[in-house]
Amino acid sequence: MPSEFDLIYRHFAHLGAGPAVELSVGDDCAILKLEPGERLITSLDTLVEGVHFLPDTFPEIIGYRAVATAASDLAAMGARPLGMTIALTLPDAEEFWVHSFSQGLAEAVSEYSLPLVGGDTTRGPLTVSVQVMGAVPVDQALLRSGAQVGDEVYVSGTLGDAAGGLAFLQDEWRPSRDAAAYLVERHERPTARLALGQQLLAVATAAIDISDGLLADAGHIAAASGVAIELESAALPVSPALAEAGERAITWALNGGDDYELCFTLPTGVPAPEGCVRIGTVVAGEGVQIDADIDTGAGYQHF
Amino acid sequence: MPSEFDLIYRHFAHLGAGPAVELSVGDDCAILKLEPGERLITSLDTLVEGVHFLPDTFPEIIGYRAVATAASDLAAMGARPLGMTIALTLPDAEEFWVHSFSQGLAEAVSEYSLPLVGGDTTRGPLTVSVQVMGAVPVDQALLRSGAQVGDEVYVSGTLGDAAGGLAFLQDEWRPSRDAAAYLVERHERPTARLALGQQLLAVATAAIDISDGLLADAGHIAAASGVAIELESAALPVSPALAEAGERAITWALNGGDDYELCFTLPTGVPAPEGCVRIGTVVAGEGVQIDADIDTGAGYQHF
Repeated sequence: MPSEFDLIYRHFAHLGAGPAVELSVGDDCAILKLEPGERLITSLDTLVEGVHFLPDTFPEIIGYRAVATAASDLAAMGARPLGMTIALTLPDAEEFWVHSFSQGLAEAVSEYSLPLVGGDTTRGPLTVSVQVMGAVPVDQALLRSGAQVGDEVYVSGTLGDAAGGLAFLQDEWRPSRDAAAYLVERHERPTARLALGQQLLAVATAAIDISDGLLADAGHIAAASGVAIELESAALPVSPALAEAGERAITWALNGGDDYELCFTLPTGVPAPEGCVRIGTVVAGEGVQIDADIDTGAGYQHF
Repeated sequence: MPSEFDLIYRHFAHLGAGPAVELSVGDDCAILKLEPGERLITSLDTLVEGVHFLPDTFPEIIGYRAVATAASDLAAMGARPLGMTIALTLPDAEEFWVHSFSQGLAEAVSEYSLPLVGGDTTRGPLTVSVQVMGAVPVDQALLRSGAQVGDEVYVSGTLGDAAGGLAFLQDEWRPSRDAAAYLVERHERPTARLALGQQLLAVATAAIDISDGLLADAGHIAAASGVAIELESAALPVSPALAEAGERAITWALNGGDDYELCFTLPTGVPAPEGCVRIGTVVAGEGVQIDADIDTGAGYQHF
């Protein structure tokens, strides 16, 4: 007999169709189609209330954000999206909550072409686990490990916005009204750069999405590739809204997580895609260095 | 900086290798290889303490059982296993618990050829979500929807054992010591019938794994196929251990969940694989009927 929570899941059943979906929710498993010569790309991300999002976050935001953050891992590999499953743990089955959450999901399903092909719903503290599945041509996935000495380092978009938005939401900073609205939107509704990732497939030597902050994530590329990365503080792209924070803007650009922009490396001479800017160089050595004496937080080298 | 829970996850890193794994834990996503002409088969199952397993269940059992129950969905589709990801929510990072859990995982990874290629670990009430991925040749997946009037209905193994074991654990029934040991093992360490599922790919018209109980799951085949299923009570396979329960054995065989045997339909004349027995027939109509006036629980037809 279906439980209250099975019934909830049916609210999401209309989100299950997509070009790669041969069978969606309703049998023991879903069936997804990869094209000849493609590999399956998959990642799992869990968001927990109070850890990965603020308590009382609007459920539509939670639904959208859970998918966007997981989709960002597909973007970082250059994958084209196939579909996803969601394990949802809820304290209760309040109809408003479920409806609003499903609206956020629906937006993300559509924006990222990630049909919801399976899931499970259980009772407990609010937790959303999203498993995304995508595909790349064999041997073409964007890894963290391919950066070469001499490559240039790039990022998409602007950095630190999500951290600035969070600081405003937590009453730690008062930007102008317009800046606050922009930064909160960047925090709550990050954009997974799926199209950019696929565009980079043919040209980038390494890539990662910025979830832990630029220094940490550039550090992951450096470690996996066995190289060092030198960043140029003057080159870091900061939005006009974040620039209202003065010096803190650069700190957030370096350490703020949750931007979900892509950081990637290109061989010298390869033009960067539109909307991306060069922020540094790959050199011999290890770790990440930056040319400014600024507060980069604990645990990172700077000079 | 890695959290306590990231460190836990590293306990599982050695479980990530397998023939289909091109890239395991450590980058933004894992990469899995399907063979030409195959389709991706995927399913998600969540186990919550106190709902899907008893509180204070030994962690090794939880680890093994979480994988086996998810793998059972691959078996029901006839899929060959590729790999899995696990979203683990834990109240704390107690080392004994993590070690014991990882031993159960390791056994299941090996037994079911399901390398652990990704995951996420968060703090909260004990919850284990396992997403399994497998592959089948195009258009060959075993669905619930293919049963034809005139087909014969079969099950693997014996039915009701897990329910009998649970009744013993909950002090509702006192079988002999040997029977109790056997039935508890069947409850705690169910076997996913992956090899059988793949063997059935070429011949079965429909299949499902028995997680909700035979009547419920045969009912899912009947509903999806637009047919009725007539079961023969005398044909239901019951283990000697469960037979100690007398009449309750048949009730458990019909309604007990968590056996994870396969129920499937074969055209008349097709020989059943070893270890499977015929338990009924597919006829015109709808629902599931049984030829005995026994307590089949609420919600099911019988005559």
